Amino acid sequence: MSESDRRPDGRAQSWPTLGELGEDAVLAEVLAALGPQPGDVPVAAGDDAAVLATPSGSVVVTTDSMVRGLDWRDDWSTGDDVGQKVVRQNLADVAAMGAVPTGLVLALAADPATPMAWVTELARGVGRTSRAAGAAVIGGDLSGAPAGTVMVGVTAMGDLQGRDPVRRSGARPGDVVAVAGTLGRSGGGLALYLDGTDQGGGEAADELREVHRTALGAPLAAGPVAAKAGASAMIDVSDGLVQDLGRVAAASAVAVDLERAALTAVAAGPLNEVHGPERALHHVLAGGEEHALVATFAPVAVPTGWQVIGRVLDGPPGVTVDARAVEAAGWDHFRR
Amino acid sequence: MSESDRRPDGRAQSWPTLGELGEDAVLAEVLAALGPQPGDVPVAAGDDAAVLATPSGSVVVTTDSMVRGLDWRDDWSTGDDVGQKVVRQNLADVAAMGAVPTGLVLALAADPATPMAWVTELARGVGRTSRAAGAAVIGGDLSGAPAGTVMVGVTAMGDLQGRDPVRRSGARPGDVVAVAGTLGRSGGGLALYLDGTDQGGGEAADELREVHRTALGAPLAAGPVAAKAGASAMIDVSDGLVQDLGRVAAASAVAVDLERAALTAVAAGPLNEVHGPERALHHVLAGGEEHALVATFAPVAVPTGWQVIGRVLDGPPGVTVDARAVEAAGWDHFRR
Repeated sequence: MSESDRRPDGRAQSWPTLGELGEDAVLAEVLAALGPQPGDVPVAAGDDAAVLATPSGSVVVTTDSMVRGLDWRDDWSTGDDVGQKVVRQNLADVAAMGAVPTGLVLALAADPATPMAWVTELARGVGRTSRAAGAAVIGGDLSGAPAGTVMVGVTAMGDLQGRDPVRRSGARPGDVVAVAGTLGRSGGGLALYLDGTDQGGGEAADELREVHRTALGAPLAAGPVAAKAGASAMIDVSDGLVQDLGRVAAASAVAVDLERAALTAVAAGPLNEVHGPERALHHVLAGGEEHALVATFAPVAVPTGWQVIGRVLDGPPGVTVDARAVEAAGWDHFRR
Repeated sequence: MSESDRRPDGRAQSWPTLGELGEDAVLAEVLAALGPQPGDVPVAAGDDAAVLATPSGSVVVTTDSMVRGLDWRDDWSTGDDVGQKVVRQNLADVAAMGAVPTGLVLALAADPATPMAWVTELARGVGRTSRAAGAAVIGGDLSGAPAGTVMVGVTAMGDLQGRDPVRRSGARPGDVVAVAGTLGRSGGGLALYLDGTDQGGGEAADELREVHRTALGAPLAAGPVAAKAGASAMIDVSDGLVQDLGRVAAASAVAVDLERAALTAVAAGPLNEVHGPERALHHVLAGGEEHALVATFAPVAVPTGWQVIGRVLDGPPGVTVDARAVEAAGWDHFRR
């Protein structure tokens, strides 16, 4: 991981590399760094497969990967940051179904020249973040990769506790749209990095950058709360509020109108402080990788911890702000 | 995928590339190529996460990845071959716990210059192989990757149907060791490729090469059969018979002695025909990626379709053949 030698914090990378250690030693180090795991896991890592308890008779499953150089940069993010983010973005998908995270498996494909210390950091971030959410790391896979390539894949599982899953397709005219967690901070943090403001700018800028690197603040517990309150539809904000709500609108065959005043309130705090009101609103609408949750509810059913930002209308599927069209381009993994 | 232009079969690669199509079009093509999916899947791909029924109240989970240039070469294997192999190697881990495969998620990270046609072939191989085993492809993830890199990850799930999992740790002195499926054919096929014998050599050589490319013949149904028959321990042969049985011996704190005569019988057929008896026996002992199943049973409990190849003894953990030490080096993902 040659970029790591140029890290702006000047922290030395420790050796040895994965190739020098070999697979058994790498695995032992990873298992130690993951730390103790919670949950109901009749058979944990170390056999052909793990066994995870699924009390409700079904399991919620999602998978999402991060690739070095595309989804993170070593001069911005540590291995621990990547571990936090890959876990939170997967668990947010579980939460967006209304499920409680229960377990995950971790796949790492890495250039043998990767320093062991980077992988140890990654495993620490994965283990700590997963544990905090009550989900056990129950297995994984270690693989080599071409020179320079490091890829981290997670498949996360959750339990619906007997409830129906909250789909994207259930929003009904008359519902309100509400958000749990922050919006635009990850996009605002990425904008700082892209402008070359890797450091400095005070605590507000630090916070935006940290949200971008780690998805800190993804409101995982709010998913089951929304499901219990009777949310009619839910999604996590991974590609941007307008784009992701557009998916809910399309799946539900409804229109969504957001209130600019409510969005401005959501943009308050560090995002507004760093970027000013106009750019802050742009990041709230278009910023991806926040992993906030957005859901629709009957107006009387909005639970504590959720802020109303708009309403569901009868009309052609789409997202407007104060009844006006918005443009907010999304993210495509293959087009550059 | 520039190597694909040099494929020995002279088949033309069709364009466009993933980057030219963009993510939505790639996803639509992949879903079409996967084809209809079996099983009990209350929520399939297309929401934040999928929901898979787990009738027995627990789910068996495993993950395994393949990386282009390390786990397959484009001048040997088609996308369909890779799709077959990545599914079988995962489902063999599920079967080795005694579980019936129920579902899987597929993660693809690919250089945007990858031809769509390769990914379509991959998805066809994944969908057909998974369907044949009764497991549904319930979700996935598409991601970009650095130039030249293509990685395919699968996380597979299975159901124990109320049985206990068959661990590696349950072998007892007095048990016999039995195998379901073939041994050494994948290793024998790889040896042909490494010797430059990519083609020719007759049907026997064709068969060895196909087993190497696709793990054709992995006896997935034999896992639950063994569990029902009371297998005390089970593993799939991914790194080689001696190495994988060594893991059973270590986990169970027993010795395993294999019978040369029985192994010679296992080597009969195309392996023996192509490589001769001595090399054939070497491939039976050391060849990886066969994804046969090896299990231990009480002598009276060996089910139909399983061949006895040795026995479990009281003694220091290890694997011998006719009571003599064997050397069979294994595979390490990071050392080259």
